[in-house]
Amino acid sequence: MYNKVTPEFLAELRLALGADYVYTDEGTLDRYKTDEEADERCFAVPEAVVKPGSAEEIAAVMKLCNKYLVPVTVRGGGTGLGDGAIAQQGGIVLLMERLNKIIELNKEAMYLIAEAGVLTKDIQALANAEGLLYAGDPCSADSCQIGGNLATNAGGNKAVRYGVTRHQVYAVEIVTPEGEIVQLGGRLKKSSTGYCMEQLVIGSEGTLGVITKVTLKLQPLPPYRMDLLAIFHTPVEAISVVSKIAQAGINPTSIEYMDNANVRTTSQFLDFPGAPHLEDGIYVIIAVETFSEEELEQKVEKLDELCTECGAVEVLEADERIWNMRRNCLESVRLVSLVCTTDDVVVPVDELSDMVKFIIETVKKYPFPLRINAHIGDGNLHIVLCKMELTDEEWEEQLSRFTEEVYTYAYAHGGRLSGEHGIGSKKAGFLERFTPKGELELMRLIKRAWDPKLILNPGKVFNA
Amino acid sequence: MYNKVTPEFLAELRLALGADYVYTDEGTLDRYKTDEEADERCFAVPEAVVKPGSAEEIAAVMKLCNKYLVPVTVRGGGTGLGDGAIAQQGGIVLLMERLNKIIELNKEAMYLIAEAGVLTKDIQALANAEGLLYAGDPCSADSCQIGGNLATNAGGNKAVRYGVTRHQVYAVEIVTPEGEIVQLGGRLKKSSTGYCMEQLVIGSEGTLGVITKVTLKLQPLPPYRMDLLAIFHTPVEAISVVSKIAQAGINPTSIEYMDNANVRTTSQFLDFPGAPHLEDGIYVIIAVETFSEEELEQKVEKLDELCTECGAVEVLEADERIWNMRRNCLESVRLVSLVCTTDDVVVPVDELSDMVKFIIETVKKYPFPLRINAHIGDGNLHIVLCKMELTDEEWEEQLSRFTEEVYTYAYAHGGRLSGEHGIGSKKAGFLERFTPKGELELMRLIKRAWDPKLILNPGKVFNA
Repeated sequence: MYNKVTPEFLAELRLALGADYVYTDEGTLDRYKTDEEADERCFAVPEAVVKPGSAEEIAAVMKLCNKYLVPVTVRGGGTGLGDGAIAQQGGIVLLMERLNKIIELNKEAMYLIAEAGVLTKDIQALANAEGLLYAGDPCSADSCQIGGNLATNAGGNKAVRYGVTRHQVYAVEIVTPEGEIVQLGGRLKKSSTGYCMEQLVIGSEGTLGVITKVTLKLQPLPPYRMDLLAIFHTPVEAISVVSKIAQAGINPTSIEYMDNANVRTTSQFLDFPGAPHLEDGIYVIIAVETFSEEELEQKVEKLDELCTECGAVEVLEADERIWNMRRNCLESVRLVSLVCTTDDVVVPVDELSDMVKFIIETVKKYPFPLRINAHIGDGNLHIVLCKMELTDEEWEEQLSRFTEEVYTYAYAHGGRLSGEHGIGSKKAGFLERFTPKGELELMRLIKRAWDPKLILNPGKVFNA
Repeated sequence: MYNKVTPEFLAELRLALGADYVYTDEGTLDRYKTDEEADERCFAVPEAVVKPGSAEEIAAVMKLCNKYLVPVTVRGGGTGLGDGAIAQQGGIVLLMERLNKIIELNKEAMYLIAEAGVLTKDIQALANAEGLLYAGDPCSADSCQIGGNLATNAGGNKAVRYGVTRHQVYAVEIVTPEGEIVQLGGRLKKSSTGYCMEQLVIGSEGTLGVITKVTLKLQPLPPYRMDLLAIFHTPVEAISVVSKIAQAGINPTSIEYMDNANVRTTSQFLDFPGAPHLEDGIYVIIAVETFSEEELEQKVEKLDELCTECGAVEVLEADERIWNMRRNCLESVRLVSLVCTTDDVVVPVDELSDMVKFIIETVKKYPFPLRINAHIGDGNLHIVLCKMELTDEEWEEQLSRFTEEVYTYAYAHGGRLSGEHGIGSKKAGFLERFTPKGELELMRLIKRAWDPKLILNPGKVFNA
């Protein structure tokens, strides 16, 4: 279907980008054989790596790749969890890191324009320095790029109040699969002027265009904040706080969840033996931010009351140590098992409690321990399974059966495969199986119309 | 390009829908030659009118129309302002009114599922009766249908706080142009699972699918509310409150604007001679809603302060009479001129003040009076021009030149043709001229991929 990279193609690339930004040496190619993926069986060494410096150069790359029928895999920060930056079908890997300029921050009108390769943390920091907030906050913010956040529609810890990445975006510039530079969206509060293609591109994981520039909404930074730790003895009680909080109009920034296995392992990992209710506590961390002290007091009081009504055994103020535990759920699992998986299923918030019960019950049939951390305010579960001493074959086989059961349950209850990590190539097979035919066909029609030679990020999300 | 309706086609339609729901009598055809449009030159009598009772029947209609090459124009409440429900290219008009059931309201999980032909006011009323809010609130709520609201991405008076129609939607069911029933979206707070096609369909004015069912978000109803009327002497001062309010994190529900011409005419129309500052007042109406009395008091106090800082000559509590004036801006213009136009340009909020200055300056060259009412919190202007005693030719010619100047300015400052009314066929020519080629081409590619025979709502938004 595709052609191999040829000397002629490379010569044209070098002409377009400059020889310094076209790599074919073994060291560089090897470095980009994987992203966050650790399983060697998923690695793929690209045939060439390019590092363009502008949208115009990316457009030139796309035109050449169409001409020579060479596929392109786009790589942002390489922090994705779906093998999205691995060039399984060969061709070139395109690095975004030279598009690293913040172009404008307008304090009065509260927006920021940046090239796609800017680190998310730099955008957050610049906004903060101006007394504003960029509300996108994926856990990988320190190393991920804003373009990648848009591509996967990244979530994070502030989504309860502010929504996910797609809600932070006014406009995007993309290079289309055929190499045209196009602006989508606008810095508008509302618009009924043609198709909303910026939202289509966001979350399409780079399959519909290379995001090269973004215009982001900034928020006023609420000056008052309180973090609560509500401790429960059962998942059902813990999760029941979510709808109570929503109905009370409290509008918290975060509602995060750690089961007791996570509490124990993170306290050990962080050397924090004084973690409250270490033996049997399930943690729900709630952050609330306001523009007045009185509003904060009232909301905290109301939260305390609601959590207690829902069965909290204790409600404390959560300091940085508790958030540190939450942030280290994944890292600390290595104390238990070197190999583990994290799933990212999302369900309607009112289905979350039953979903967790189902998972806890189901995993009993399987030989691996389970731990769950979750953005429960958004219905988004991170299901972590540990390989322990299982053989590769046993692990694969059992994991696949378990995953099948979980996805089947989730879809039967209005859920989806991924809340924030994306599909990449890792879950593309599942997406094709679990997505109704009619919906999948509409996606294919768009992909094929915009990328008739299927040059851009092939094999990601679904096979077009 | 299309075929005429034939007896054979009608026979198949009658078989699919029942003879009672396929109309070819002159009276019915004549009734559906227009929607809100009053200009006879825009009328078009359809060849047949159908009133299907389900998504399945609509799917059957679409398949027949593809088979016989007959175009379909979909009609919701017929309240659109862009000639969107007029069948200019002939064929059939498809009425949505039999899809009129509210299927479910879930109070705990705060959502509502309805068929597309349900009146928006009935959804609002049912939500209110359960202590909840459906936040979509177009001015035509009493007669428009929810499906039409999604099709045009309707705005309204609550968009500052809650966003526009697209922000109220979890999921839609559509019948595709080729007649497949497909579910898009899900009742999820977040999802990174394939393309976000529900947002693509919303606002596409029926060109990408017939919306047959919607799942809407409901909000907790804030128990406390205050409406303020801030009165100014200049548009620039009046508009300057918007960014101050945004930066202060007040999050009001509405920020509405009426120029003095509107103040005078509505006070006369409503027989309210005691309207404050009738002679020279420009009105800004601000509604704020909260979950506690203290929060309300604080926000109102802060608003009073901000408005005064911005130059308000008086800040009063706004009662129902003031809102009534705002609602009757358009109706009352008939006192001045029987024929008038309303435009719907939207610009970035920080460009609004200059845009209004430009319009006021520009209109001086033209022979018609101007009045502006606006959703200034969203940057959305309704520019009303009155024909007065001008001849048809003079009116057309001058209006066209003025419109050209306004759109050119708006686009040069990041604006768009329509904030909430949509493009329909009325502005399709302008859309094609003012939209950059690359963006227009991407829209065309989607439309042609989903509707290869261009059967559904042809000539709306743009010529595919």
